Amino acid sequence: MKVAQIQMKVSIDKEETKKRVVKFIEDIKDENVDFICLGEMFDCPYDINSFREYAEKEGGDIYTFCSSLAKEYGVYFSAGSISEIDDKQRVYNTAYVFDRKGNQIAKHRKMHLFDIDIKGGQYFKESETLTPGNNITTFDTEFGKMGLCVCYDFRFPELSRLMVLEGAKVIFVPAAFNLTTGAAHWNTMFKSQALNNQIFAIGTSPARDHKASYKAYGHSIIINPWGDVVSELEEKERIMIKDLDLSMVDKIREQLPLLKHRRVDVYNLEKRL
Amino acid sequence: MKVAQIQMKVSIDKEETKKRVVKFIEDIKDENVDFICLGEMFDCPYDINSFREYAEKEGGDIYTFCSSLAKEYGVYFSAGSISEIDDKQRVYNTAYVFDRKGNQIAKHRKMHLFDIDIKGGQYFKESETLTPGNNITTFDTEFGKMGLCVCYDFRFPELSRLMVLEGAKVIFVPAAFNLTTGAAHWNTMFKSQALNNQIFAIGTSPARDHKASYKAYGHSIIINPWGDVVSELEEKERIMIKDLDLSMVDKIREQLPLLKHRRVDVYNLEKRL
Repeated sequence: MKVAQIQMKVSIDKEETKKRVVKFIEDIKDENVDFICLGEMFDCPYDINSFREYAEKEGGDIYTFCSSLAKEYGVYFSAGSISEIDDKQRVYNTAYVFDRKGNQIAKHRKMHLFDIDIKGGQYFKESETLTPGNNITTFDTEFGKMGLCVCYDFRFPELSRLMVLEGAKVIFVPAAFNLTTGAAHWNTMFKSQALNNQIFAIGTSPARDHKASYKAYGHSIIINPWGDVVSELEEKERIMIKDLDLSMVDKIREQLPLLKHRRVDVYNLEKRL
Repeated sequence: MKVAQIQMKVSIDKEETKKRVVKFIEDIKDENVDFICLGEMFDCPYDINSFREYAEKEGGDIYTFCSSLAKEYGVYFSAGSISEIDDKQRVYNTAYVFDRKGNQIAKHRKMHLFDIDIKGGQYFKESETLTPGNNITTFDTEFGKMGLCVCYDFRFPELSRLMVLEGAKVIFVPAAFNLTTGAAHWNTMFKSQALNNQIFAIGTSPARDHKASYKAYGHSIIINPWGDVVSELEEKERIMIKDLDLSMVDKIREQLPLLKHRRVDVYNLEKRL
């Protein structure tokens, strides 16, 4: 499965964003990639005040743009996440995945909101403007089942484990860590969930923009089921293409059967909803 | 809380083991440590055929020796793990903790047995001779609540999470990774559980013995609740003393409230027994 991660800066102008996404995809159209990925809130400044301003209803402008691109290029498209507004005017941080025909095959509303206050470091309170989702999200592809969550969601072992118990062998994570937690935790978080669950973990971030109020860590990353870094970008704009051998998931699980060795007679992890 | 980790080679002779443990502790008796730690199966070759041969009933020779040492030196003693045999002749990989008076305050029988078969790497099947324990183990100290598990147990996020939900702020892990999984996973496993749970994770291994059939990875390690390595030894025999500021646990959890942000309305993790 050939994956392209587009690590691009966030523009304040949606038309500019669309042009730039098309340019990135045009540049790699001869690479025959299967999956294209974007970062968290790729069309909206990462700023509590912008989420509502940039929000669209499902099926809106950016949604349709992404769906059309997936169809036009015949690729799966993990279209990062965008700001979604529902009929009751609630705003969500929502990730969509479209298949090669442009059909929506997955939708995940960020379920753990990022409220943080680090002395001398980052302050951010998503829950002031965002509403959390309540669903654990997996979806089927020609390559098998996959999981989807957004950024801070991936810190919670319960969520990734439940996606994996539903059959996910790859988890896509549009994300935008900041410079404080990025340098400290980005790499470990992806390794942790990939290794504990023996999956491919694919994290795609926006590129860092030193002029933006929220400076993304960048470092779009892929970890394999053995816990090794397959690739990790730096902070700059770049597209990264990697060919992943998904059969590695079953091979690793056969040799070191972590999921089989879970003591389900001693502990129980389950969905409530 | 001042912690000493004794990373020593395993001897085939229990009397020799006792002499060497005493020597290590005598060497640091003026350091005023609070906790002394040993590695997994510190008195028994790590070998399926040896577990039964070296096994003792609870309260046996090595057990009494460890309890007496804790009392004599007035320290908490996480006495690694030893091979325990019960009245029904079942053998367990059991970790004990004694308090400053020599009282047993924790007992954990390894609950996830290590059965692995890596092509060109390690083969080991503990379940051929060992019986698994069924308890999640936490204990109280003057420094607060702590958790205890053995080696492979620590790969399972469910177990460490449940110890933490019971209040553990430090988890002790006597362990003996091998050269295959040690180089690949040791560091990530400890970082993973420490970071995801915002605890101190303290892993103590035997030193590597190139003549032994099972070559331990060594690398006794402490990770803090921010996911940073406080100390990590190499493979040789050595004692490591570190002073840990346990107030860091609450500070980190206040700034980045992972445990508070768990979506317990969406997923549920609980003990069955």
